[in-house]
Amino acid sequence: MDRLVCYDCGETYPAGEAARCACGEPLWFDTDGTEFSWPDASDAGDGVRLGRDSLWRYESVLPASPPGGLAAAAGGTPLFRAPSIEPPDGPRIHLKVEGTNPTGSFKDRGTAVGIGRLDGPVGTVSHGNMALSVAAHAAALDREAVILVAEDTPDSRLAMIAQHDPHLFRVRGEYGRLYDDTLERDLGVAFLNSDAPLRVAGQKTVAYEICEAFAPDAPDAIVLPVSSGGQASGVWKALRELDAAGLLPAVPRIYLAQAARCDPIARAFRRGDARVEPVEGEPTAAVSINNADPPSGTRALAAARATDGAVVSVSEEAMLAETDRLAADAGVSVEPSCAVATAAIRELAAAGEFGPDDDIAAILTGSGYKYGPSEADGSTVREVDRADVPDAVREIVS
Amino acid sequence: MDRLVCYDCGETYPAGEAARCACGEPLWFDTDGTEFSWPDASDAGDGVRLGRDSLWRYESVLPASPPGGLAAAAGGTPLFRAPSIEPPDGPRIHLKVEGTNPTGSFKDRGTAVGIGRLDGPVGTVSHGNMALSVAAHAAALDREAVILVAEDTPDSRLAMIAQHDPHLFRVRGEYGRLYDDTLERDLGVAFLNSDAPLRVAGQKTVAYEICEAFAPDAPDAIVLPVSSGGQASGVWKALRELDAAGLLPAVPRIYLAQAARCDPIARAFRRGDARVEPVEGEPTAAVSINNADPPSGTRALAAARATDGAVVSVSEEAMLAETDRLAADAGVSVEPSCAVATAAIRELAAAGEFGPDDDIAAILTGSGYKYGPSEADGSTVREVDRADVPDAVREIVS
Repeated sequence: MDRLVCYDCGETYPAGEAARCACGEPLWFDTDGTEFSWPDASDAGDGVRLGRDSLWRYESVLPASPPGGLAAAAGGTPLFRAPSIEPPDGPRIHLKVEGTNPTGSFKDRGTAVGIGRLDGPVGTVSHGNMALSVAAHAAALDREAVILVAEDTPDSRLAMIAQHDPHLFRVRGEYGRLYDDTLERDLGVAFLNSDAPLRVAGQKTVAYEICEAFAPDAPDAIVLPVSSGGQASGVWKALRELDAAGLLPAVPRIYLAQAARCDPIARAFRRGDARVEPVEGEPTAAVSINNADPPSGTRALAAARATDGAVVSVSEEAMLAETDRLAADAGVSVEPSCAVATAAIRELAAAGEFGPDDDIAAILTGSGYKYGPSEADGSTVREVDRADVPDAVREIVS
Repeated sequence: MDRLVCYDCGETYPAGEAARCACGEPLWFDTDGTEFSWPDASDAGDGVRLGRDSLWRYESVLPASPPGGLAAAAGGTPLFRAPSIEPPDGPRIHLKVEGTNPTGSFKDRGTAVGIGRLDGPVGTVSHGNMALSVAAHAAALDREAVILVAEDTPDSRLAMIAQHDPHLFRVRGEYGRLYDDTLERDLGVAFLNSDAPLRVAGQKTVAYEICEAFAPDAPDAIVLPVSSGGQASGVWKALRELDAAGLLPAVPRIYLAQAARCDPIARAFRRGDARVEPVEGEPTAAVSINNADPPSGTRALAAARATDGAVVSVSEEAMLAETDRLAADAGVSVEPSCAVATAAIRELAAAGEFGPDDDIAAILTGSGYKYGPSEADGSTVREVDRADVPDAVREIVS
């Protein structure tokens, strides 16, 4: 498996984070999973079993070994059905709550696998979930971490990242070009950016977990937010491997969701274009997926097409309503960037794409508690004297 | 098992949340676990296995059934060794990261079990982790939730709780008395307070998970923060049950940690008192364990004594330094209230109580990301132009 391959032209390269093919498309690890079967319970390697089955359960199809410490806690997230948010006559919705990863997002999967493979300093171009994840996992292994954040990153986000003691740089100038900078130059730091082959290898484990939960059946579709295309690539890679291993009765369709205000992949899908082109995005509350020029966008597009899925744009209004719905009706606090996934299910169900016999898994990529609302809606809080509590409470339950 | 019993005088009561014994001490469920053995993988009950083994793995010794939805995600948290924070010649430290529960704290265990047993509206007296947990789990099951918060609860905390749409009351007057108010009066709401028997039944599962990870061995000690004494009671209950079932080679010692500024249980321990008396606490950064009159304090004290453990006071300085250490050296962000656990291990190791052959499990009760620092230490962030990034990065790695 220790080889990189281009999903598009098939060219192969030695492993070592070459990152992109000469044809311009991103690479991933050349695992085929043909020999894979669902594993038994995992072991932490020191005679103590893991407290839960983490992503290392799938170590046989990963290009890394568990490095110890925090990395042992990545993956193994809960999946449960949430009837309370299913639309009438709609599909069964199963929520994969990635916010329960140790730093509160799906990014811990790729970081854990990446840092398990790499030596020396690691870095990333991010001011959000990926920055926090890389900083935390580097701290656990006493590695230097270089985090390049945008000039306008809020202090509260910097503070959250800074507690893990990385080298934090606020970069003045064109932040969007930094991704290419870190690929093009050898800075002596391994950059675990959003679609780096090692990260994609880690991110694929979420689809292994989802499919194993349904085995020997499989969900009819997996729906997830898409930004750079790294996570979408990981899901596609996992489904290809599981299919090769004969572990899927049918390959689940991959549906990707974007915020309508910045939806280059959805636009390409609607137009039937072969490649994703950059767009001029508008500001959106979906900050974590606001990517106008996604480096693995064309691969993500191919993932949706190859599995008979789709790429959907979700309006700002529908996304914010869905964020509220997930918290108020399913008890799950998410970023707006995640809520596009279940909002897309709702739209696809309304369009007849999903019916009541379908099992749909939605990947909720990050916790809403980290970047939560700063003010309560005034109408929801009532002031009361202690002596009046009994009457106030009885009023509610009567 | 459907009976409550007093740990102290042995009096029994029918189940139904009688909460306290006539002798004044708190009750717990009368499970003995004698027939218990480590279970196989769990099933969500709808043909889909859980994404991870949750606390429902131990359903046979719980007084509730999984109610569906979010409750399926409680427990099953990671446990891993953290050599990076072990003191020289000190014990092996294993971190149980409860912040990866769905609402970011250990409270989800008791809430999930409680709400699995109860019908109708639920409530709690809390403005912290427990309030968030009860609000979220109630939302998932379309139940009314009544959350009684203190008058001075910050707006940011209210906003976090409010997203789950409970009935939120800011209560003017003596907040400390509200716990008793909710026990003494029938308000038509089941109050899942910190040491309610149902909550203790849920909280005990963390000790099941820790011990199962080491089985057929067991850790030498379990160290945790103590506030009301509810979680400490749960750990003790689990160890008694596992011991009765013959699943422990030796019963792990229970060590409890408090902030020195508010340490009624530690004081009683040092003095050799039989009962815990209220203290006049001082303000501390350990807000989640700042309990000057713990309702299950005497039971917690008994837990430490009966297992040959201890109750330790941790200075404000040591606690804050440990909070930083966990984030910077182990990659785990916690509240200061959690950091007392590993700070206590450090002090006990220095005192010769723990040696290099000991395996110590520390329960890190809540995530630090929810109530994180609001400002980064200025010295950790550097401003740099994009063109100067390569030189700045090379400076670090060379």
